[in-house]
Amino acid sequence: METVSENRCFDGMQGVYRHASDVCGCDMTFGLFLPEEAKDGPVPVLWYLSGLTCTHENAMTKAGAQQWAAEQGIALVFPDTSPRGEGIADDPMYNLGTGAGFYVNATQDPWSKNYRMWDYIAEELPRLLTANFAIDEERQSICGHSMGGHGALTLAMAYPERYAAVSAFAPITHPSQSDWAKKPIHAYLGEGNVDWTRHDACLSLRANGFAGPMLIDQGTGDQFLDALMPEALAAAMTETRHPGIFRMQKGYDHSYFFISTFMEDHVAFHAEALYR
Amino acid sequence: METVSENRCFDGMQGVYRHASDVCGCDMTFGLFLPEEAKDGPVPVLWYLSGLTCTHENAMTKAGAQQWAAEQGIALVFPDTSPRGEGIADDPMYNLGTGAGFYVNATQDPWSKNYRMWDYIAEELPRLLTANFAIDEERQSICGHSMGGHGALTLAMAYPERYAAVSAFAPITHPSQSDWAKKPIHAYLGEGNVDWTRHDACLSLRANGFAGPMLIDQGTGDQFLDALMPEALAAAMTETRHPGIFRMQKGYDHSYFFISTFMEDHVAFHAEALYR
Repeated sequence: METVSENRCFDGMQGVYRHASDVCGCDMTFGLFLPEEAKDGPVPVLWYLSGLTCTHENAMTKAGAQQWAAEQGIALVFPDTSPRGEGIADDPMYNLGTGAGFYVNATQDPWSKNYRMWDYIAEELPRLLTANFAIDEERQSICGHSMGGHGALTLAMAYPERYAAVSAFAPITHPSQSDWAKKPIHAYLGEGNVDWTRHDACLSLRANGFAGPMLIDQGTGDQFLDALMPEALAAAMTETRHPGIFRMQKGYDHSYFFISTFMEDHVAFHAEALYR
Repeated sequence: METVSENRCFDGMQGVYRHASDVCGCDMTFGLFLPEEAKDGPVPVLWYLSGLTCTHENAMTKAGAQQWAAEQGIALVFPDTSPRGEGIADDPMYNLGTGAGFYVNATQDPWSKNYRMWDYIAEELPRLLTANFAIDEERQSICGHSMGGHGALTLAMAYPERYAAVSAFAPITHPSQSDWAKKPIHAYLGEGNVDWTRHDACLSLRANGFAGPMLIDQGTGDQFLDALMPEALAAAMTETRHPGIFRMQKGYDHSYFFISTFMEDHVAFHAEALYR
């Protein structure tokens, strides 16, 4: 593993690291914020899964999460959103290929060789983190934005005991019923072959449940509301009687200005679950 | 004036606007955060001058200032760091030309036509802001980073009654004595023609003073310490008996991770002066 950069930040350290990924078959880069407390032993960790077009860098520089993580003594991981680089399949559409892994293990050509973001986030990267950094694998929590909200929710529900809590900013909630969100997942997994109870947060919540609490923030001024379908997740949460908070935030859009506004609440929410 | 974007942020609005600048002879773009209180009438304003290579966007998206400005009911202005675009003189060096205006009014060819960032920040942009937004011109304060710290300090001392306070993150403090910082200023103003009591914060503080308080943060791990010369400003501050706080922050570097760590303190410092 190679250190790309390390910058002191809120008394902790914001690092960027690169490693050869067996799962993705290429080098992968991630950001990791370690609070000061990590010097004294393993700390809890909050995963932040980013949305379409993002790398490990966007949330790390724009979401303003480190200050709250430092306050709570929690590490933050910012993984990339897809394999990328020379020889990696890509597509000119922004919602397929580089920057658009959708947190699935692709089974279709040309994607199946490298696009295995589900296993990368659920298996390989956690092992790498706990082996190399002061991260407590027994205390993990997960959040995400947009496509990353979809990833956070579906992973949390597939591993319902692993993450203490799940939260999302403007998540893609119900891709099986959205023409726009369905297309890339069909490309990766094959139309007709998709296990939607695994890759659709609404269906997964109904099928698998989730052991912890849930927090969802959605801006009412979001330009992608039709594709995100917040109403479907609100219905799934309320109809399954799942403990959670669903907030429609007046006037906010899909940007990092929205995310940073509510980041303090999300980190505090995860901290409460992690330190319970 | 044209609205480039407006995003709701911490109950206020983060806008980006473009206008034809008479002073710079080209279109100029700036970011403006208005807190919720601006709906009810003019609010105080804190200027943030950015460093080399930056546009209006870097601090606006990475410094995490909006949350504290929202808490204090203060507007934030993020100006660009130079004229830019087709037909504007440039240089391949990162510390001359585009992104490197150094907050002077250039007198030398080919810079004199457009590189007039001193007058742009001190004269044209304040007039534009107070004419178009709920900004109280009687309550202004100023801060900056690196080259922008140089700009903030020298402007504050040239207009010692205008700004309630001045602060800087890792400012260029003493360009008349730094070979690296001297070069671009010589290019803009002509070697031998520079009024260093105007464009060197250390000399200006000794010559002009400043009516308000001063806060300086400098990382001890900064890769540019030799060019920044914090020791020169600390000497000027202490020898002139100027009220101020000079903090050497252990291990921090020159990045936005450093800036965001201490932004809360800086906004609170300016708020105290603005609401005095």
